Amino acid sequence: MKLSVGCTLGYRCDGPATLMLTIRPQDGGNQQVMSEHFRIEPDLPKEHFEDSFGNRTVRLRPSGGRVQIDYQALVHLQPPFAGSWEEARQVDPGELPPEVVPYLFPSRYCQSDRMVPLANSLVGHLEPGYARIDGLCDWIYENIAYSYGTSDVHTSAPDTVIERIGVCRDFAHLGIALSRALGIPARFVAGYAFKLDPPDFHAYFETYLGGNWYLFDATRKAHREGLVRIATGRDAADTSFANLFGEVTPDGMAVWAREVSDDSPSEPAPVETPLSNQVA
Amino acid sequence: MKLSVGCTLGYRCDGPATLMLTIRPQDGGNQQVMSEHFRIEPDLPKEHFEDSFGNRTVRLRPSGGRVQIDYQALVHLQPPFAGSWEEARQVDPGELPPEVVPYLFPSRYCQSDRMVPLANSLVGHLEPGYARIDGLCDWIYENIAYSYGTSDVHTSAPDTVIERIGVCRDFAHLGIALSRALGIPARFVAGYAFKLDPPDFHAYFETYLGGNWYLFDATRKAHREGLVRIATGRDAADTSFANLFGEVTPDGMAVWAREVSDDSPSEPAPVETPLSNQVA
Amino acid sequence: MKLSVGCTLGYRCDGPATLMLTIRPQDGGNQQVMSEHFRIEPDLPKEHFEDSFGNRTVRLRPSGGRVQIDYQALVHLQPPFAGSWEEARQVDPGELPPEVVPYLFPSRYCQSDRMVPLANSLVGHLEPGYARIDGLCDWIYENIAYSYGTSDVHTSAPDTVIERIGVCRDFAHLGIALSRALGIPARFVAGYAFKLDPPDFHAYFETYLGGNWYLFDATRKAHREGLVRIATGRDAADTSFANLFGEVTPDGMAVWAREVSDDSPSEPAPVETPLSNQVA
Amino acid sequence: MKLSVGCTLGYRCDGPATLMLTIRPQDGGNQQVMSEHFRIEPDLPKEHFEDSFGNRTVRLRPSGGRVQIDYQALVHLQPPFAGSWEEARQVDPGELPPEVVPYLFPSRYCQSDRMVPLANSLVGHLEPGYARIDGLCDWIYENIAYSYGTSDVHTSAPDTVIERIGVCRDFAHLGIALSRALGIPARFVAGYAFKLDPPDFHAYFETYLGGNWYLFDATRKAHREGLVRIATGRDAADTSFANLFGEVTPDGMAVWAREVSDDSPSEPAPVETPLSNQVA
Repeated sequence: MKLSVGCTLGYRCDGPATLMLTIRPQDGGNQQVMSEHFRIEPDLPKEHFEDSFGNRTVRLRPSGGRVQIDYQALVHLQPPFAGSWEEARQVDPGELPPEVVPYLFPSRYCQSDRMVPLANSLVGHLEPGYARIDGLCDWIYENIAYSYGTSDVHTSAPDTVIERIGVCRDFAHLGIALSRALGIPARFVAGYAFKLDPPDFHAYFETYLGGNWYLFDATRKAHREGLVRIATGRDAADTSFANLFGEVTPDGMAVWAREVSDDSPSEPAPVETPLSNQVA
Repeated sequence: MKLSVGCTLGYRCDGPATLMLTIRPQDGGNQQVMSEHFRIEPDLPKEHFEDSFGNRTVRLRPSGGRVQIDYQALVHLQPPFAGSWEEARQVDPGELPPEVVPYLFPSRYCQSDRMVPLANSLVGHLEPGYARIDGLCDWIYENIAYSYGTSDVHTSAPDTVIERIGVCRDFAHLGIALSRALGIPARFVAGYAFKLDPPDFHAYFETYLGGNWYLFDATRKAHREGLVRIATGRDAADTSFANLFGEVTPDGMAVWAREVSDDSPSEPAPVETPLSNQVA
Repeated sequence: MKLSVGCTLGYRCDGPATLMLTIRPQDGGNQQVMSEHFRIEPDLPKEHFEDSFGNRTVRLRPSGGRVQIDYQALVHLQPPFAGSWEEARQVDPGELPPEVVPYLFPSRYCQSDRMVPLANSLVGHLEPGYARIDGLCDWIYENIAYSYGTSDVHTSAPDTVIERIGVCRDFAHLGIALSRALGIPARFVAGYAFKLDPPDFHAYFETYLGGNWYLFDATRKAHREGLVRIATGRDAADTSFANLFGEVTPDGMAVWAREVSDDSPSEPAPVETPLSNQVA
Repeated sequence: MKLSVGCTLGYRCDGPATLMLTIRPQDGGNQQVMSEHFRIEPDLPKEHFEDSFGNRTVRLRPSGGRVQIDYQALVHLQPPFAGSWEEARQVDPGELPPEVVPYLFPSRYCQSDRMVPLANSLVGHLEPGYARIDGLCDWIYENIAYSYGTSDVHTSAPDTVIERIGVCRDFAHLGIALSRALGIPARFVAGYAFKLDPPDFHAYFETYLGGNWYLFDATRKAHREGLVRIATGRDAADTSFANLFGEVTPDGMAVWAREVSDDSPSEPAPVETPLSNQVA
């Protein structure tokens, strides 16, 4: 599937500011970035860098005033990895690759250390591995109400266990915290999502089973085949689409993901000279 | 049933201190206090008072040193109120007696304001009234592990929802918080408990249904017919058996409740001239 | 001083609902209620009751639709109690009147049990009594920013210690929690406030010192002499101006407190036959 | 300075278990590991790996029974980096090296997102940079009591702000959270500490100022020149000296750090054939 994804972000800056935007899809795995366009108004220098998770961030340093970022990428997308249930077994901590081990540990929004009995009571009767995470997702879907405006940037997985309401990021945090509490490495993914309604950035999670990362989305709001990964990390603290420094006020935001037919020209509406994936 | 209940409490005081002990059973309702004995070493003046919940507190003011309180009461106990399920309906907030209304509100350990969706998801499908509280107790019993040393004096109902472990006071707080979240008044009861193993003070809760207070004990650790009420309140903050002021360190504690045969002499081992239920 | 105080409250009810409104000033102490007027549209039966704190609640039971309450009272106000600093000493817990003891204990929004070292580090060097509470109020005023929309109905004193921002209710909760942590009984007061800008219900607190309750307002937003007490309790959980049951949505609110000259007619604009302070 | 550092750790395993121990000092920066000795009883295979922070972990997989690890290293230690105050300026977020950016974000125990007003109120009046962190350390030292057994593995920086008591890890978490809240990258360091009394693993923190990481220890319990770094990370979740999987119970622990005179033989008491710093 070919998807055109992108966003328009506006900010008002009362003085010098720094914006770190993580809005570019990752290029690799099951997705290939075919072209990218940035239009920034005013035309500020863009510094690109990749963090240790492979997330691609652009840093802007406006001196003040309103800044608008229009970003657009054409992505060729394969379905996410889907092994058999038999392969997706729980890996013994003694056999985990070292780079996967940190995803066992608690993080800002995923205090797995407090949730071991809960995770076990929910799915401890199921086969270790895929079935347990699938069971967690069912439980989350059935027990947490999806509702905008009910949680905020401080809301963490224990809050969601109590209050039973939240948005995609809260669903992902809860899935991650419970997975880690079972001894299964889990990480947060932020991305674009085809047919998400209303359109927005989306969040879901992955767990490490049988040697691969498996995608899970307890919200059941988006098409698994239409998820375009932007950033991966321990939780939302690692993967925010915008980190703002200085006196900055958000002023407008739109996000989209739409299918592009295979025989259409490569990019419908180039808005600037294409980015050639340069990374500082 | 006749029960001999009591406790021995020791405290070491490094300087002048105040001890407020709420260890005397309430006299009324389904229980009648037939005799009471206090032995306090050294022999300090005892000030007795009743709080607004009818709880009977004795206040001691040692000037220092070790204080030991031996208390014993003979209680004639009827089974707790048990109406029919049909009578135990949920009372509309518009019809609640004014004095019951405060038991709808959140309190220190029972933050019902955060648990409305949880309570509804657990038992919202059941008939309003007794069935819902019974359902909550089943859920608590099945989902919270009973284990000493896993919670402390700061643990509140939201913590227990997350950590799934606690002692009788945590079970009661969770039952109360979820009941109030359903719009059903609920209160905490501290008491002596026949055949509780190991012997200790016990905690359970009551909800107001169809015009009466109904007793619930989600721990299933004690005999309903052997519960001797000491104190009633919003939660454990109102009903602590000991409030200590000054440099006071607990130094020894024993609690008991044993059956006394009807034809035995009124009290096996009087340890002091009986208290005649004087209340300041 | 004579004040005309009152409020207009609107609610939309999708079906039968119960509204418990605690908006009538207390009649006694330093304030005398000279006249009261209720206008309720539609004209619903009003049930009046007093809770155990002496707070006067009116209960309405609309069957649905929009309900508007206009309430107005003329109050003759004396300055609040103000003894000398020497009299306002800290009372030993051993000498507190029994009815004051519960105000030492933690409550929903005032978890004083977690704040003993903090309270002592802030004002432990000051003379026990008025000076300590005065010191706490200075610290709160200097360290907590007053800002609307930064806290909500779940915010409690520990949150305010961390986040350093809140509204009058948060200031009062923090003052209460810290006072109790010092061993000084403290209670929450909700009221009307003359010259509060913008006009709203106000919250402040009182501590029990030397045999009297002393008024403190760490917000420094209102005139001490213009505070008209509506409700007293452990914290905001006891004193909400509106407890709503059923599908009820607030729809409009105005609150006022204005001075009435002594020689003006007793009440400027009677809106209904006067309430004769009947209490169910 | 030459230090001999090490520890003895015992564990009882009821069945197969995995132990991940991060007890080897980092080799680099201001410290050089001259020799290392491991003795493990029983003699289990050791898997060595380095995580993304450069921390060196050994993974053991006992099949059951008691396991004891004796570890010893000889470390040549230079004083930690200490630039001038003028150099230690706050770096604009727009100029931070990409690999340092994540240390601005909140983590499990350092919820800096909730502490911006607090951090600013404490040191916002000081020069941005070293002076602010130094001011935070003074505040922490003066306001948080150092006391064993008052916090646990779930305690995070907001708890310490409220409860004002903790151990070295809590002091470090609080320092980190407040630094990040100021926009200054901060990280956790776990290590051995010369002359720490009682001997134990120690925790402190570093902030990124003017292009270098500066060491801070708000506990003032250890000698800055005697700190041997084991692990660096976002907080204690990244740097635990022991992560245990399976039915494992700690059974004995000793930690030490003692000076070795320069002319003494290279290692006083070799306990096994030396480790040649092999890393899997």
